Amino acid sequence: MNKQLILAKRPVGLPEEDTWRLETNPIVAPKDGEVLIKHHYISLDPAMRGWMMDRKSYIPPVEIGEVMRAGAIGIVIKENNHPNFKEGDCIVSWGGVQQYEITTGENCYKVDENVAPMPKYLGALGMPGMTAYFGILEVAKIKEGDIVLISGAAGAVGSIVGQIAKLKGCTVIGIAGGKHKCDYLINDLGFDAAIDYKSEDIYKALDEKCPKGIDVYFDNVGGEILNAALTKIRLNARIVICGAISQYNNKENIIGPSNYLSLLVNRATMQGMVVLDYSKDYSKAAMDMGMWMMQGKLTSKEDIYEGIENFYETFLRLFSGEKMGKLVLKVI
Amino acid sequence: MNKQLILAKRPVGLPEEDTWRLETNPIVAPKDGEVLIKHHYISLDPAMRGWMMDRKSYIPPVEIGEVMRAGAIGIVIKENNHPNFKEGDCIVSWGGVQQYEITTGENCYKVDENVAPMPKYLGALGMPGMTAYFGILEVAKIKEGDIVLISGAAGAVGSIVGQIAKLKGCTVIGIAGGKHKCDYLINDLGFDAAIDYKSEDIYKALDEKCPKGIDVYFDNVGGEILNAALTKIRLNARIVICGAISQYNNKENIIGPSNYLSLLVNRATMQGMVVLDYSKDYSKAAMDMGMWMMQGKLTSKEDIYEGIENFYETFLRLFSGEKMGKLVLKVI
Repeated sequence: MNKQLILAKRPVGLPEEDTWRLETNPIVAPKDGEVLIKHHYISLDPAMRGWMMDRKSYIPPVEIGEVMRAGAIGIVIKENNHPNFKEGDCIVSWGGVQQYEITTGENCYKVDENVAPMPKYLGALGMPGMTAYFGILEVAKIKEGDIVLISGAAGAVGSIVGQIAKLKGCTVIGIAGGKHKCDYLINDLGFDAAIDYKSEDIYKALDEKCPKGIDVYFDNVGGEILNAALTKIRLNARIVICGAISQYNNKENIIGPSNYLSLLVNRATMQGMVVLDYSKDYSKAAMDMGMWMMQGKLTSKEDIYEGIENFYETFLRLFSGEKMGKLVLKVI
Repeated sequence: MNKQLILAKRPVGLPEEDTWRLETNPIVAPKDGEVLIKHHYISLDPAMRGWMMDRKSYIPPVEIGEVMRAGAIGIVIKENNHPNFKEGDCIVSWGGVQQYEITTGENCYKVDENVAPMPKYLGALGMPGMTAYFGILEVAKIKEGDIVLISGAAGAVGSIVGQIAKLKGCTVIGIAGGKHKCDYLINDLGFDAAIDYKSEDIYKALDEKCPKGIDVYFDNVGGEILNAALTKIRLNARIVICGAISQYNNKENIIGPSNYLSLLVNRATMQGMVVLDYSKDYSKAAMDMGMWMMQGKLTSKEDIYEGIENFYETFLRLFSGEKMGKLVLKVI
């Protein structure tokens, strides 16, 4: 039997528990050209909140009654004339919040679980890592000496963004919630400074910790932090709009950055990105990232909770901030 | 004697008449290396509102007690060992709102009043024309087939932006206030469509007139029109932030674009520009613009009012929209 988390209704604001329902359905056999994958880990990401909205976006929304979309990693346990995958293969997929999936292999790729543990392939070596890599290198186009500010800096994307920026010779300031995360940024990830937005006034803290202003702002949160960052940008600054987690559960309109005219004064650029656009270069990025990891130059944390039954309370950690690094659900 | 308009106080909201005071002071003689210019025309621009604010911007603010900064064009009537200018030369300068100026010639340049009438050198062949040229070609990087939306489209900058975009094979939609201006866009400037923001619902009008969305939005106005345009951008769209006249007189915070996450969904860019950055290429731009004008491919209107005494009521036309094309004050 296959435990599946089904989208039951469209949430307004912070999703409530009855947004989803757990169903147990029989596992069907893979048809010709398909494989059956047993999921080991499921990726929980802020973007999932967006996929639940019935609106035009970069991918179609999850429909009511469908399995909740999510990245997943697991092992092929049955194969039916599949051209590329065989039993025992470790596969990263968009398999959704369920214990098993049947797939033709579209948008799936094989990884080696002996090189890195499975959860890393959902984090630093998966979408969040790719987002960080292409966001900071291709969109922000950092160069040595840049002053780089990152929000959501202890998160799955932000923590990698900052480490890559350090590798490239930038000064890196991270914004995160709580002393524990800020200590992690400085002591474990090598950031130059950290701002605790939960206990510090963000404007004052930026004055203190970015006295020369910033060349790059990598934004995962939106809202007042984006607005504050706009007041500190330097000439020709680049702002990467990667996410806006502070705004995803708004019931009314989201807050727009009222300081956006700083873009004009500073001839600066604000650019949105979606990691899917870079798929043709994922393998190059994964090689770089893997190499940095093996050299001890890049580290990542996965925060792992257990059981599809615990999806809801785990999912909420994305928005409460009660997690560290990449949030992952272990399928048991 | 020299009539001079002096900044008397810093305005809050829409400037009141006592923001400036008119002084009459003796004309002094040019010192060694200086010239005395008699102004013929003074340029009135939305940017002047920003120069009155005491805050960091792309140029220092006008100080209280100083002559109000403005572009100007006039004739050298006295010269004292100046290396480049002689009596009778026609000079474009930042001479300010006054009848005469003394200058070393810094940031001034000579033009030929026989090629084009003086007011054109403050409009299509001056800063607004340069802003349009570099904004649409260098910042927006238009290419044939692009769908280009322009706000403030009947203004000094917008009217040129749209004509250049048409020259380059784009589809051009202009937003302006009132039927008269909209007719002008279509009948005189060759725009493909026009939206009258004073009588039309902007969201509905954009649906009708840009059914395929937009590749470029050239923004002179900010506020709700920017926000609406964000809902219509296509993949890899470019938004040029040239100005935000709807927001310049706000007493509170300006309105930020709450739909800015459309940048993410559409991998789009919002970039600010200041024309001064392109000064080394002004002459190339002026040659292109002059050629297009002589070929009848580029036209411009100047709306000319008379007398420094009438500065205040003329200046207000920038914000009420009661003007057509480039607003100029004739010095009498």
